[in-house]
Amino acid sequence: MTDTILSSATKEIAIGFERPFCVIGERINPTGRKRLAAEMAGGNFETVETDTRAQVAAGANMLDVNAGIPLADEPAILAETIKLVQSLTDVPLSIDSSIVAALEAGLAAYQGRPLVNSVTGEEDRLEAVLPLIKKYDCAVVAISNDETGISEDPDVRFDVAKKIVDRAQDHGIKPADVVVDPLVMPIGALATAGRAAFHLIRRLREELKVNTTCGASNVSFGLPNRHGMNAAFLSMAIGAGMTSAIMNPLHSEEMTAVKGSDVLMNHDPDCRTWLRSFREPTADGEGRRERRRRRSA
Amino acid sequence: MTDTILSSATKEIAIGFERPFCVIGERINPTGRKRLAAEMAGGNFETVETDTRAQVAAGANMLDVNAGIPLADEPAILAETIKLVQSLTDVPLSIDSSIVAALEAGLAAYQGRPLVNSVTGEEDRLEAVLPLIKKYDCAVVAISNDETGISEDPDVRFDVAKKIVDRAQDHGIKPADVVVDPLVMPIGALATAGRAAFHLIRRLREELKVNTTCGASNVSFGLPNRHGMNAAFLSMAIGAGMTSAIMNPLHSEEMTAVKGSDVLMNHDPDCRTWLRSFREPTADGEGRRERRRRRSA
Repeated sequence: MTDTILSSATKEIAIGFERPFCVIGERINPTGRKRLAAEMAGGNFETVETDTRAQVAAGANMLDVNAGIPLADEPAILAETIKLVQSLTDVPLSIDSSIVAALEAGLAAYQGRPLVNSVTGEEDRLEAVLPLIKKYDCAVVAISNDETGISEDPDVRFDVAKKIVDRAQDHGIKPADVVVDPLVMPIGALATAGRAAFHLIRRLREELKVNTTCGASNVSFGLPNRHGMNAAFLSMAIGAGMTSAIMNPLHSEEMTAVKGSDVLMNHDPDCRTWLRSFREPTADGEGRRERRRRRSA
Repeated sequence: MTDTILSSATKEIAIGFERPFCVIGERINPTGRKRLAAEMAGGNFETVETDTRAQVAAGANMLDVNAGIPLADEPAILAETIKLVQSLTDVPLSIDSSIVAALEAGLAAYQGRPLVNSVTGEEDRLEAVLPLIKKYDCAVVAISNDETGISEDPDVRFDVAKKIVDRAQDHGIKPADVVVDPLVMPIGALATAGRAAFHLIRRLREELKVNTTCGASNVSFGLPNRHGMNAAFLSMAIGAGMTSAIMNPLHSEEMTAVKGSDVLMNHDPDCRTWLRSFREPTADGEGRRERRRRRSA
């Protein structure tokens, strides 16, 4: 049984084979969100604050924090955002950047044991990021591509993941602290993307014995009813052994799929989370009618 | 690759490992439907007609027909119902009864190659039902329980399924004409029911190489938000290799899960069914707003 332990100053969680699925909220990310990018670049963290509270209220177990804004001082903004988010919530964070200096600034600002998002199988990335993971004794998302790009063959992607896990061990980092992202392609563009992902998730779990994550909404890119497709994907991926995802916890279809899959994997003892989410009348006094309406939303 | 071929007088379908998931509509069944039972016993088939049209319109690939009404002449009513349903739709039928004489009357009335629902591993059922399957050259649902009841151990249920498949072969019936029901228990009562089902579905496919089916809504018995749970279960079961289910096609959550899972298994070429179901504006002239509202329903 593999557990990846993450923490904030006061709260510890585990991503693991026999744990409830870990929902990593993806909203604090200015990529493709112009208004948020302008706010963060100008030192205005109102939307970050709203997104923090909303995602935790919706059931996120961790939050991903990204400050990738063109021409901005990303290391400084990422560090500031992390401090702010940690002042608002006790869920552990994922520090998300493609710039090593930003990861380092984020790590220095962080209280607890974060997840670093991410390292790839590219030689220069491995040698820049892995020493940081070791220095700060934290965990890292490993993306299964390298200098040659992203292979369509899941077994080639497995080999890249294995290379990263092996290299991490050379740096004194345990496999349990490497969470592999198998890279899920859009199913509308690549019809084999689903089966490739499930096959790879199973191999990663059974052979490398590592936890897995992915950007769950990528699979539905370009298709209508993305939430319906994401929900089906999440259930199938959890059935194949996936243990976390970077996703939007504000969408009920996806969250219902995650909660239902947790019950079906026997990771929700006595269906407690399921019952708390859907039982009527509810403990919080929400009426039957509202609950019904929301349930069907 | 295993294909179970079923047909009506004019239409042939296949349940198979590399086919879209087969949705068998469950509505034509008076069990627990007092009004329908009274209607059918009195020779009134209005609801049967409505249920036939609605289920086919909703995307059912087959319809299950059951006429189990206490104290009624089940063989006569089942035969009459089958004739009526076959006059209304060309989808193949599943002839559903626990009474052998009713199955025989249904088989005699049926045009094409039906699925017979069901035989169990009980000695007297095997020797009563299998000769009928051979005589009418059709296919049969095999339920994995026997004289000892339903084991909680999926490997015991596998052995029962294997016994039925072996006995069918003794009667000259191919394994491809045996569709095994692994018996999915309510997850609220038995926390291991999901993993047991997925494990068994995988073994049935990989070792016995048979198609599988189940009553999909059984898993959510007693829980709130049954449609959400059924949807998660269907996606996970399809990911594990399940190829059909007896279910209610009128619920959008379950049907969305099935269609999404078909795409992700690469069983919906060019996402054609998905796009036809969810693309806006739609070919049938349904407006964007209605479609959005219905999608979120």
